Amino acid sequence: MIGQVVDTNSAWMAQELNRIGVWMHHRVAIGDVKEEIVRALEEEGKRSHIVLITGGLGPTADDITKPVLNEYFGGKLVVNEEALERVKAIFKRINMPEIAMLERNLKQAEVPDVCTVIQNAKGTAPGMWFEKDGKVFVSMPGVPFEMKGMMTDYVLPHLQQQFTMPHIGHRTLLTAGIGESALAERIKDFEAALPDHFKLAYLPNFGMVRLRLTANGAVATQIEQELDIQFSALQAIIPDVTVVNEDIPMEELIGRLLLQKNATLATAESCTGGYIAHLLTSIAGSSDYFNGSVVSYSNRVKQEVLHVNKETLDTVGAVSEDTVKQMVTQVRQLLHTDYAIAVSGIMGPGGGTPDKPVGLVWIAVANAKQVVTKQFNFRFDRMRNIQLTATNALNLLRLLIVDNQS
Amino acid sequence: MIGQVVDTNSAWMAQELNRIGVWMHHRVAIGDVKEEIVRALEEEGKRSHIVLITGGLGPTADDITKPVLNEYFGGKLVVNEEALERVKAIFKRINMPEIAMLERNLKQAEVPDVCTVIQNAKGTAPGMWFEKDGKVFVSMPGVPFEMKGMMTDYVLPHLQQQFTMPHIGHRTLLTAGIGESALAERIKDFEAALPDHFKLAYLPNFGMVRLRLTANGAVATQIEQELDIQFSALQAIIPDVTVVNEDIPMEELIGRLLLQKNATLATAESCTGGYIAHLLTSIAGSSDYFNGSVVSYSNRVKQEVLHVNKETLDTVGAVSEDTVKQMVTQVRQLLHTDYAIAVSGIMGPGGGTPDKPVGLVWIAVANAKQVVTKQFNFRFDRMRNIQLTATNALNLLRLLIVDNQS
Repeated sequence: MIGQVVDTNSAWMAQELNRIGVWMHHRVAIGDVKEEIVRALEEEGKRSHIVLITGGLGPTADDITKPVLNEYFGGKLVVNEEALERVKAIFKRINMPEIAMLERNLKQAEVPDVCTVIQNAKGTAPGMWFEKDGKVFVSMPGVPFEMKGMMTDYVLPHLQQQFTMPHIGHRTLLTAGIGESALAERIKDFEAALPDHFKLAYLPNFGMVRLRLTANGAVATQIEQELDIQFSALQAIIPDVTVVNEDIPMEELIGRLLLQKNATLATAESCTGGYIAHLLTSIAGSSDYFNGSVVSYSNRVKQEVLHVNKETLDTVGAVSEDTVKQMVTQVRQLLHTDYAIAVSGIMGPGGGTPDKPVGLVWIAVANAKQVVTKQFNFRFDRMRNIQLTATNALNLLRLLIVDNQS
Repeated sequence: MIGQVVDTNSAWMAQELNRIGVWMHHRVAIGDVKEEIVRALEEEGKRSHIVLITGGLGPTADDITKPVLNEYFGGKLVVNEEALERVKAIFKRINMPEIAMLERNLKQAEVPDVCTVIQNAKGTAPGMWFEKDGKVFVSMPGVPFEMKGMMTDYVLPHLQQQFTMPHIGHRTLLTAGIGESALAERIKDFEAALPDHFKLAYLPNFGMVRLRLTANGAVATQIEQELDIQFSALQAIIPDVTVVNEDIPMEELIGRLLLQKNATLATAESCTGGYIAHLLTSIAGSSDYFNGSVVSYSNRVKQEVLHVNKETLDTVGAVSEDTVKQMVTQVRQLLHTDYAIAVSGIMGPGGGTPDKPVGLVWIAVANAKQVVTKQFNFRFDRMRNIQLTATNALNLLRLLIVDNQS
């Protein structure tokens, strides 16, 4: 609640719940304060059929969720043998024999006797499943990968058993090179004609807009069929700005396109400082098509590793069309790849000049036949300028690959 | 609410509010549904003095916040001339003359006549400041950098004028190499003896734990003095695991240490794929000490660019102490730096073998005199393994730099 941690759990949970037909309609964050926890249990229990709770199960003094839940549901704390064995096993594995610490952690194996225990395959704090007046309350650790394990292995399948769900279906289209308003204008007739059980959402991100079409109803096959028809109609309106008709990130699409062509990729990055390589390698299996990157943050590295002409750097400078052309050509040869990306720019906040202001970026993409360059002017903060440079570089590469296919 | 966007706004807002003495105690997320928006306005207006609202002000059909607010506060929509000029100026600048689209965007310059308009320096949707029964309601765009501009330029200073705030002070200590429970055990007497207006929070992140000490009270000087005393006492208990006694990320600390020594850094990254370079270059001014990186994702790049022996790769493999030693030595020479980091590992989900399972990582750090290597075994998913590798590599480098100072 004081903002030192960004909540990534909620988005993941909402996605997974949605997939099985549970509609998240209210999300609340509160501090580790007993009265607020009790009040949230009261209020959310009235509002929804299912209340999922994360966090506050750790071994430290500010973790009070378990005793508060125990009191709220009128139980008493008892040691759960299986949880105890798990705690002991984890401590044995990481060689932590201190007695005092073990006591604190052994307490994590205590659970209210009025809940069903959800074992934690990836940590020491077990989850708890309570039921009251036909409502389900589930308490899980806040550590993302522990929570995800419990949701996947236990919570989602048990919710599916206990409730009759409507079917919720989605189709997602990723667009690039068009703003939200212009996009809305182009598809407004389509949007206005959508049936009531359909919803269209605009999700702008890093200079691209995802369009998400959602429908819900009782009969899954019917919903999916209707979605296919509407989604085809949507795609037919905006083929020119469509990147991909699936909900995958640009870097995953690039990977697929390269694999299809059995082609490889390298990057030469100045202003993005390795971020494009990071995006590409965040995809499992990327070593099949991504050979590597030269992050040439200094001019000397540009000269000595990438063999950019000293004269070019001295005359037109590092942020120039000439420089990125040389960078892209050289890195493609140096790393023996079919395709390459090069970027150079001024990300800010410092480093701008009247001629070359913060936000100026040159991008080049290349294959054996062709080098394509493009200049951009971003007007955001450092991190967003880096992200936009990366996204636009990947999109330029995508266009080059696709053009070469046709 | 279906989880395709992670909310980063709330954390930033909470931090900024906290700084001026506003305590965020309740955070709610709801969908673009009129009834839910109205209900949230009712409930949150009862709960708090200040209700900050983000999102739903865009130009598309699912953006309904403005008309709902207008109705709730009993106003009528009128064109705000200054906002209109701003919309026109932005469209002129980005060369978007389409009439239909302009109409949609011009609507964004309409505001309820019962609010104070907050001009948007960075986008087309103005913010709105309403007051009702002594409570303040502020509506802002959901786009992070637009919201941040409005908060900084208008909302925070006006809240400070309107309310008498308590003083809230923080001190943060970053620790590494110790788990949350072990840390809690070492400082439990300190924690138990803290006065009632103090709070200690444990914030684990990427294998490190931040300890945040908070105090609040009426007199700022007194609170800050008390914090200094308690914070000194805390630091005295755990000097061995303390990374830094400020709330800055590891990569910023590394930058400071290098600048102090007038030293430079390079990285040779296999399994992290450029992520360490990205972290380092996310800090403004990093070009003063970071020369660049060779992301050697394929063995051929390890051999040809970093000159790792083919024999080493053939016999002990890329994920080995020998390989990272050669990588770190070579990249330090190739990029002419004082310090270097090299990493090689198996991030998963694929690529593991019985001998070298997923999560195995070798890290090396070096200067002119010394090469230090360390093996790690992480047991998480791909992204978390990458993050943990990066954090631990930076921490090893920190220890090498600090050792060389003493």
